[in-house]
Amino acid sequence: MGKLLIVGTVAFDAIESPFGKTDKILGGAATFIGLAAAQFKLDSAIVSIVGDDFPQSYLDLLKNKGIDISGIEIVKNGKTFFWKGKYHNDLNSRDTLITDLNVLADFDPKVPSNFKDADVLMLGNLHPNLQLNVIQQMEEKPKLIALDTMNFWMNNTMPELKEVIRHTDVITINDEEARQLTNEYSLVKAAQKIQAMGPKYVVIKKGEHGALLFHDDEVFFAPALPLEEVFDPTGAGDTFAGGFVGYIAETENISFNNLRNAVIHGSNLASFCVEKFGTERMLQLTKEEVDRRLDQFKQLTQFDIELK
Amino acid sequence: MGKLLIVGTVAFDAIESPFGKTDKILGGAATFIGLAAAQFKLDSAIVSIVGDDFPQSYLDLLKNKGIDISGIEIVKNGKTFFWKGKYHNDLNSRDTLITDLNVLADFDPKVPSNFKDADVLMLGNLHPNLQLNVIQQMEEKPKLIALDTMNFWMNNTMPELKEVIRHTDVITINDEEARQLTNEYSLVKAAQKIQAMGPKYVVIKKGEHGALLFHDDEVFFAPALPLEEVFDPTGAGDTFAGGFVGYIAETENISFNNLRNAVIHGSNLASFCVEKFGTERMLQLTKEEVDRRLDQFKQLTQFDIELK
Repeated sequence: MGKLLIVGTVAFDAIESPFGKTDKILGGAATFIGLAAAQFKLDSAIVSIVGDDFPQSYLDLLKNKGIDISGIEIVKNGKTFFWKGKYHNDLNSRDTLITDLNVLADFDPKVPSNFKDADVLMLGNLHPNLQLNVIQQMEEKPKLIALDTMNFWMNNTMPELKEVIRHTDVITINDEEARQLTNEYSLVKAAQKIQAMGPKYVVIKKGEHGALLFHDDEVFFAPALPLEEVFDPTGAGDTFAGGFVGYIAETENISFNNLRNAVIHGSNLASFCVEKFGTERMLQLTKEEVDRRLDQFKQLTQFDIELK
Repeated sequence: MGKLLIVGTVAFDAIESPFGKTDKILGGAATFIGLAAAQFKLDSAIVSIVGDDFPQSYLDLLKNKGIDISGIEIVKNGKTFFWKGKYHNDLNSRDTLITDLNVLADFDPKVPSNFKDADVLMLGNLHPNLQLNVIQQMEEKPKLIALDTMNFWMNNTMPELKEVIRHTDVITINDEEARQLTNEYSLVKAAQKIQAMGPKYVVIKKGEHGALLFHDDEVFFAPALPLEEVFDPTGAGDTFAGGFVGYIAETENISFNNLRNAVIHGSNLASFCVEKFGTERMLQLTKEEVDRRLDQFKQLTQFDIELK
């Protein structure tokens, strides 16, 4: 049983999709990562920041999932980071309508002393300087540092982003971001270039088309589970990352073979996340449901061709 | 060792892609299907039509792969079906520049008498009335009738297409076509609706994102192999179908479990097709290369999570 430290946003989200709209609900990268990782046997903590407009009940939800929230700073008279987005009809693309950084603008992350020796460090999508700051606070080099980021940081802070990438073991980005980061259309070539930047593992997320894990000349693929209904993709990528690092922290094994399993666990949990708005599905999720769907993943992908 | 009957176009293709352009080269759905199926132990025949402008050397290529070409009619003073297309930069979309039906306009398919008892009938993309005509010529109901089609027939001959679909056991279409055929965005729902139209198996091809096989409430997924370079997607869907039905004809087994393997074989062969222009790669392909890549498919997809 390992220790997982998560840094990232804890936030309000408001979502519009063809299936409805929500008012301000619980969101943020660290929230989704933490809820997914909570499906595993591990010690986890979140480093983040909120305003005092953030309901205690939301913090309690995280705490009740066994997440150490002592690293979530609450700013007096501060307002919590707020994101509002609208999904297009096919749910594959979205427009950001509002991004109010609020307290996030002055975020100075502080790693709790009992997590400075975490086995796995998950850097959720944030300014690269904040991600680097957290790496530097660690007293021991974690067994695995995982990085999530997005095109915004590539457009605005590429040198800082490359510096963080240099310090990480695994990066999780989507296909378009992998292409932007490397100027390579082929994801195979893009993954090679990213490995040369530092990370020995590269995870490329393709949304409803699954995720690829690259390591040296090897590649593993986890499909997304084909679903009858997708209500809200918000947080699916973070949930994937949370399942991925959660499984690694539980098993304390960073071999390629174990990371293959971790990618399946990530895809599995992400398949639940999209079934309801926001964190709703993840908050209800039971071990039995998770195991049943893992079995579906086996049915979905396993075959038995004997080579003659 | 079963008998496979293929009906479809044998044609000239001219292709423009970001990687170059070709003059009139060997193409056509039945050609790609036949070359892929030729990787398996089976008796195969093509029913098609060409003009006398079609080089004997192209016909010999097919014959030398063991394909019975007695059902390919050669029209004196006729011109062979010609398709010219141009791929966009990402190779995921293309414009058709020329479609000269030529002799195809008066195609009256004739199934050779020794293939009227074929075990597997593969209906390549053609006018649905021609596909139905071939079904009606069979003296025994084939163990499996597989249908490929495209959006053009949905736009122009939907009632006729639905009649063919009613007579088939498996349909292979792409994701957009599945959506158009059913007015369902969710591929899970689309596959359910298509099964209700007749076919007990539905294969939805997603190009570089792999292929899904649906049967009742079960689903199987075969990824496309991530490739460094894709030169020319022409014929990839037909090559997939050819590998799929070729494996079924060789094994003479139409269980869902065997069809899972068939989908992998189809994806495997399609991964070669796109590596060079037209049929070039398929004509050179060796058993050793095919087997080596099947092993890569295993590495790509197999994992071992024990449920606790």
